[in-house]
Amino acid sequence: MTQNATLTGQFFIAGERRGHGETFHAYDPAKGASIADIGFFSASQQDIADACAAAEDAAIAFADLPLERRAAFLEAIAAEIEALGDALLSRACAESGLPLARITGERGRTCGQLRLFAAEVRDGQWLKLRIDHADPARTPPKPDLRLRMVPLGPVAVFGASNFPLAFSTAGGDTASALAAGCPVVVKGHPAHPGTAELVAGAISKAAADTGMPAGVFSLVTGADNAIGAGLVADPRIQAVGFTGSRSGGEALMKIAASRPQPIPVYAEMSAINPVIVLPHALASRGTALAAGYIGSLTLGSGQFCTNPGLVLALDGPELDAFLAEAGALVEAQNPQTMLTAGIHSAYEKGSAALAATPEVKTIARGVYPIGPHEGRAALFSVTASDWLAHRELQHEVFGASSIVVRCADREQLLAVLRGLEGQLTATLHMDDADLADARALLPVLERRVGRILANGWPTGVEVTHAINHGGPYPATSDGRTTSVGTLAIDRFLRPVAYQDLPEMLLPEGLRDGAQAGALARIDGAWRLA
Amino acid sequence: MTQNATLTGQFFIAGERRGHGETFHAYDPAKGASIADIGFFSASQQDIADACAAAEDAAIAFADLPLERRAAFLEAIAAEIEALGDALLSRACAESGLPLARITGERGRTCGQLRLFAAEVRDGQWLKLRIDHADPARTPPKPDLRLRMVPLGPVAVFGASNFPLAFSTAGGDTASALAAGCPVVVKGHPAHPGTAELVAGAISKAAADTGMPAGVFSLVTGADNAIGAGLVADPRIQAVGFTGSRSGGEALMKIAASRPQPIPVYAEMSAINPVIVLPHALASRGTALAAGYIGSLTLGSGQFCTNPGLVLALDGPELDAFLAEAGALVEAQNPQTMLTAGIHSAYEKGSAALAATPEVKTIARGVYPIGPHEGRAALFSVTASDWLAHRELQHEVFGASSIVVRCADREQLLAVLRGLEGQLTATLHMDDADLADARALLPVLERRVGRILANGWPTGVEVTHAINHGGPYPATSDGRTTSVGTLAIDRFLRPVAYQDLPEMLLPEGLRDGAQAGALARIDGAWRLA
Repeated sequence: MTQNATLTGQFFIAGERRGHGETFHAYDPAKGASIADIGFFSASQQDIADACAAAEDAAIAFADLPLERRAAFLEAIAAEIEALGDALLSRACAESGLPLARITGERGRTCGQLRLFAAEVRDGQWLKLRIDHADPARTPPKPDLRLRMVPLGPVAVFGASNFPLAFSTAGGDTASALAAGCPVVVKGHPAHPGTAELVAGAISKAAADTGMPAGVFSLVTGADNAIGAGLVADPRIQAVGFTGSRSGGEALMKIAASRPQPIPVYAEMSAINPVIVLPHALASRGTALAAGYIGSLTLGSGQFCTNPGLVLALDGPELDAFLAEAGALVEAQNPQTMLTAGIHSAYEKGSAALAATPEVKTIARGVYPIGPHEGRAALFSVTASDWLAHRELQHEVFGASSIVVRCADREQLLAVLRGLEGQLTATLHMDDADLADARALLPVLERRVGRILANGWPTGVEVTHAINHGGPYPATSDGRTTSVGTLAIDRFLRPVAYQDLPEMLLPEGLRDGAQAGALARIDGAWRLA
Repeated sequence: MTQNATLTGQFFIAGERRGHGETFHAYDPAKGASIADIGFFSASQQDIADACAAAEDAAIAFADLPLERRAAFLEAIAAEIEALGDALLSRACAESGLPLARITGERGRTCGQLRLFAAEVRDGQWLKLRIDHADPARTPPKPDLRLRMVPLGPVAVFGASNFPLAFSTAGGDTASALAAGCPVVVKGHPAHPGTAELVAGAISKAAADTGMPAGVFSLVTGADNAIGAGLVADPRIQAVGFTGSRSGGEALMKIAASRPQPIPVYAEMSAINPVIVLPHALASRGTALAAGYIGSLTLGSGQFCTNPGLVLALDGPELDAFLAEAGALVEAQNPQTMLTAGIHSAYEKGSAALAATPEVKTIARGVYPIGPHEGRAALFSVTASDWLAHRELQHEVFGASSIVVRCADREQLLAVLRGLEGQLTATLHMDDADLADARALLPVLERRVGRILANGWPTGVEVTHAINHGGPYPATSDGRTTSVGTLAIDRFLRPVAYQDLPEMLLPEGLRDGAQAGALARIDGAWRLA
C-alpha cells in the first residue's frame, strides 16, 4: 500500500493537499450509515479560484510539452491507480454500494482508458495537421497556410455518481481532456470523497513524477452546489465535462451560457434508450429476449445511462407472452443497493408516479427490499396511444424501471419513435425476416440517437475508436460529441492556422516533412507517415 | 440572361416562389436612395414554419442521397450563379455600395467555395469512418462497432451585410451545411434582398435540375428581427450559421440556448485583429509597414471581420515615424461608401467616441466625405497603460478605424496581449532579429486567436484546407470551429455508432472493404483507399 492510500480528508490544489474548516463524511448506502473514519474538507471559492489560476498558469507549459511526455503522464496515472491496490477498491465499494467485482472491472476500464488515450496522444491524428503551400505566382499570391488543433485551456470535470472510477476523478472526461493538453480541475462527487482523494493522490504523484507543471490537475470537493457553480463560472475554465442528471447538467449549461465568455458544456444527462423488438424476433425467441431484457434492465440496479427504459413492440399474443416472461423475471429479482440515498428516493418517487398513472399498467415489481437503500425493479406497460398522449412518460426514471409500449401497428411504432427526444442508444431486435422493417426504421433512429445496436443490449459501452456515447439533446447537451472512446479528445481542441510563418517559428509537426506518426493533409491530399 | 435573373420580390419556400402583403424596398447606399424598381415581400411566421417543415421533410432523403449527387448539386448551384451573369453583379453592387471588381471577385470566391465543398463531399474523410471488428473470444465478448458522421438536420443561415455573395444566400455557411447533408433555410439580409432572390433562384433551379428533395433549400426575407428569431426558435432547426455584429450574434445565441432543445450557433461576430510590429521590423521598414497597414485598414472601407483595428509596438522615435507615415496616408485617403446607413452611422458614432476619449489621441482622419454614406478613415493612438485601464477601447468599431498602442516595454506589450478578448487573427511583423521576441509571443497568441500571420495583413481569407476563420469568444460564438475552408463542414455533423448491425443494414461506407475514396480507421489503424 503506497503512502497515497492513506486518507487525510484533504483536496488537492496543484499537487498540494489542502483543507480547512468544517468537514463532511462519506456515506455507505449498503449500511445506511456514515463512514466515520475520516472527515472531508469542503473547498471554498478561494480554493476554486486558486485551482483555476494554477490550471491557467500550467496551460501553456502543459500544451507545449512533447506529446510523448503527455502520453507518459497518462500511463503513470494508470500505474499509480493500480498501485493503490485494495485500498481503492474497498473504499469505492463502501462509498457506492457497488459490488467488488464491478469496482474491480471499473478500475480496469479506467486504467485501460487512460492507456488508450496515451496511445491516442502518440497517434497524433487529432492534431488535424494540414499544410497548404504558398503559390506566389497566383493572382493574388496564395499564402502558405498550416493548421493544427490546440487545447482549449483549463477544463472542469464533474465526478459522476454512478461511475466512481471510470467517470470521476481520473475518468473518461479527465483522460480525454489531459490527452488534448488541457489542465483539469475535478469537482469530486460528494458521494465518494474518499475514492476521489485516493485517485487525486495518484494523479498528483504521477504529475510530479513525470515533471508536469503543478497546475495540470486539481481536485475540489464538497457537497455544496456552489462549488461546481463557482468552478464553471471561473473565467479561466474553458470547457466542462459532466455526467449526471438532466437538472444538474442544465444548471451547468445555464451558468456556462451566461458567462461573459460562454463555454462549451459536455453534459451526458438523460436517456431511456428505446429497444424495438420486431415481430419475427418476438415470435421466434420471445423468451430469450425477455431474459436478456431483464438482465440488462437490472444490471447494477439499473443505474446506467444506457439502461433500457423503453421497449416497443407490436401488440398481440407474442407480446403478452414476452411480458409475462419478463414480469416473472422481475418478480424474482432481488433488490439491489442504489448508489446514494438521493438516487434511491428519486427512483422510488419516479416508479411510484408511473405506477399511479391510470394509463400505465404495472406488470411486475421485484422482491420487496430489506436493506436501507435498495431499489426494487419495476416493469410497466402502456398502449402507444396513451404513451403519445403523455409526454411526461418519456422522463428517465434512473434505476431498474422500464416501460413496454404496445403498438397497434407499424405506423404507431413509428409515431412513438418520431416523438422521442434525443437518446444515447436505440436497439433493434430482429430476425432475417425483420430486415425490411429494420431498414425502414434506421433513418428515423439515426436522427434521434447516438448508437444503434442490433440483437444486443445497450448497457455496456465499449471504450474504443468506433464507439459513440452521446446523442441529441437531452441525452447530452452536445450531440456533436462522444464522452467515451478516442473521438472524445476532439471535445477539448480548437484549430489555429499559421500563415506565412518562418519555419523556425512553426510548431514542429507543421514543418515540411515533420508529420512523423501523424496523419496529415498536404495541399488537399491525405498522407500517412 | 436566364429567367431567374428577373426579380419578382418573392422569397422561396421549398422551390416555390411566395410573397404576400406589404413590401419593402432595397436601398442604394452610394446614391442614398431606395431602389424603386421592385418591392420585396416579408416572410410571415407561417412562411418560416413552412420552410422549416419542408426542410425537416427533406432531411432524411437529402442525407441519404449518394455523395456524388450531393456534390453535383453544389456544382450546379455554382453554375447557375454564374449563369445569372451581369444581372447579379449589378444588383449586388447597387445593394451594397461595393465596386464591381470586388463583387466580381466575390462571385468567383462564392462559386469556388461551392466547388471546393463539392470536392470535399467526394473526398469523404469528414465521414470519419471507423470500424472496430468484434472479438467474440474476449471476456466479455467485444462487439462489432462502426462509426460515421451524419448531418445534424435543417440549418438556419443568416446572410451577412458585408459579403452579399460569399457569406450570404449561397455563401460559406450554406455551402458547408449542404455539403454536410443538411437542408438550409436562409434568412436573407434585408440590405440586399434582390441579390438574395437572384441567388435563391439559382439554388432552387439547381436543386430541381439535380433532383434534390424540394425542402433542401428555402429563403425567407424581411427586415423584421422577428423573422430570424422565429427561424432560430423553430424546433426543426438544428444549427445556426451567422456572420454579423456581436449584438446580433449574442441575440441568436440567447434564443438558441433557451429553446427546449438548445442548438449550436456558429456566429462570427467581432474582432480587432492585433498587429504586433516588432522592434527590428519597425526600425528597418517602418515606411513600408505603414503603407501595408493603411492599405489593409482601408480596404473595402474597413468592412472586413479581419480588419487590423489594433497595432502594438514599442514606443520610441521609430514608432513616431511610423505613425507620422501612417497618418499622412490616412489623411490622403478618400472616403468610401459603406454598406448600409446603419453601419455608417455606427461607424461614425464609434470613431467619434474614440476621438472624444481624453486618453486617445487622434492621429489622422481621412478626406471629408461628400457622398451620403461614406466612411472616413480614422487613426488613433493611446499608451498601453491607458489602453489597459479602458477595456471599452477593445470594442470593435466596424469600418476603417484603428488604434496604435504605444507600449513602454515588452512587458507592457505582453500585458496588452494577455488582456485581449478572443480574436480571429493576430499578425507579427518581424525581421530575423525579432525571432526571439516572436517566439515568446506565439504561445500567448495561440491561446487567444484563430489565425497567426507573419509579415502580412489579416484582410484576405484564403478558402482552403488549412485555413481557420474562427477564434475564441467573442471573435466567434464557438472557437472550436471555422466558418471558412473545408473544416467548416464538421460544424454540421455528429457521430452515430452502429453495433453488431447485419451487413445489409450498414450504411454502404461502413461495410468491410467499402471505404473507397475515403480515409478510414480500422481496428485503430488509419487506412487510405
